[in-house]
This record gives sequence, structure tokens and C-alpha cells, in this order.
Amino acid sequence: MTKNDCIFCRIAKGEIPSATIYEDEKFRVILDLNPATKGHALILPKDHWDCLYDIPEETAAGAMKLAKKLAATLRDRLHSDGLNLVQNNGSTAGQTVSHFHLHIIPRYEGDGQKIGWVPGSSSPQELDEIKKMLTD
Amino acid sequence: MTKNDCIFCRIAKGEIPSATIYEDEKFRVILDLNPATKGHALILPKDHWDCLYDIPEETAAGAMKLAKKLAATLRDRLHSDGLNLVQNNGSTAGQTVSHFHLHIIPRYEGDGQKIGWVPGSSSPQELDEIKKMLTD
Repeated sequence: MTKNDCIFCRIAKGEIPSATIYEDEKFRVILDLNPATKGHALILPKDHWDCLYDIPEETAAGAMKLAKKLAATLRDRLHSDGLNLVQNNGSTAGQTVSHFHLHIIPRYEGDGQKIGWVPGSSSPQELDEIKKMLTD
Repeated sequence: MTKNDCIFCRIAKGEIPSATIYEDEKFRVILDLNPATKGHALILPKDHWDCLYDIPEETAAGAMKLAKKLAATLRDRLHSDGLNLVQNNGSTAGQTVSHFHLHIIPRYEGDGQKIGWVPGSSSPQELDEIKKMLTD
């Protein structure tokens, strides 16, 4: 399944060249052109899915297995100290290309990046209310 | 497999109370006490694994399947506009509790969060060099 106007479809299928570090029947993994750090890579399914909401669960699971495998490669070959996985869904969440992709970002001491959020706080009552909304 | 001094082991096993929104034999999903946004949840495997490097790939894949399922629940019940998945490994990457966990962060227009990184740039030569380090 390909979407003709999707740049990640074209990269995943090999129609547009990329720095590919892994490829199999279902996935292509490329180095990000604007990396957060050395070795920042993107796992792209070859089939088109907009995001986590519409991807089949087996494909999402396959991306995660691949992330685990590549985490070890990045650590061993690039001597990274840690790793972030980030997967964004929807423009509100910072997704810039509407083709499911999983960022693998090796981290190095002193790399100057900060990947996180501003923590809030919730009272037990607020948490209980949200829990009810999600489970009732 | 439990690590006695691990707070997430104790929460996952139900020894410490939590706002649990999902539970099965292998996982517990709880609301974060310091949420980035309303509905920010953590997927915790009940067995202890420090991080992505040492977790079995089937367990990592199971966490991802659960994230997909919960993404729909969060969207439908809380009317979120998008979602970030974040999974940190190692203190350099911002991991604060050494028990594998996957953050599910629903996003809302105007929620004031920014989850990302400072983008760099790589020349084709630099990308080719890193590709060689990872694939040769």
C-alpha cells in the first residue's frame, strides 16, 4: 500500500535515495537528515500508514522489535550512552510527515539535547476522575 | 522476575497503589503522577527489565501493541488531538526509574508542551560515514 504523494513512501520503497542502515521486506531504516545526535535514525514501514492510530498492531510491534535490535547496534558501533525512542502522531504532537515513523535517537553525555516535557501535577482526585473516564 | 528495591516493580505487582487504567498478566498501565498532559500514562511490564537494551523483544513488542490500543482509548475518551510515545533508556536519555517504561502522552491543541529536539544537519559525507560504521 503506497500513497503517491507521500515522501516517506517513496523513500521506503527506494524511489528516493537515503542513507539506509537496515532494510527488510517490511521496513527501511534511514539516518535522519537533521539528526538530533549522531546516528539518529527513522524506522519506516514500507506500507503507508498515517500514524499509530491506523497502523496494524503487528506492524507497530515489528517496528519496536527492530528498535530494540538497532539500539544494541547503535550502542556498540557508535558508543552511545543511552537512547530515546520517540513516535509522534498528529501535527499537535509534532508529526511533520504523515507516514508512521519511529525515531531512534542515540544519546551521548553532554550532547546538549533535552527530550522531555514540563511535568505537571495531579491530585489523587483528578487521577481518579481521569481513570474513570478511561475505564468505566 | 522482580527487583526488590525497584519502585516500578512494586507498583506493577500492585504492592504500591496506583491509578491503574489497564492490567493483564504481563503489564500494568498507570497514570503518571506528574503528567505532561491529561491522561499521560506509563506502560510497565510486570517483570523487571532495566530498559530497551535488556528487555525481551516480545515484551517490547507487547508494550507497543498495548500503546496502540490505548492510543485509541485516550483519543476516544479524552478527545485528544494527537499522541507522543516516548521511551527513555539510560540517565543520559532522561530515564529516571531503571525499569523499562513507555510513556503515552495524549496531546491537545494549545497544551503548551513541546516534545522534540534541536535538529542538527549532516552532510551526505557525514551520513555515509555513519552508515558505514553501522553496517560494515
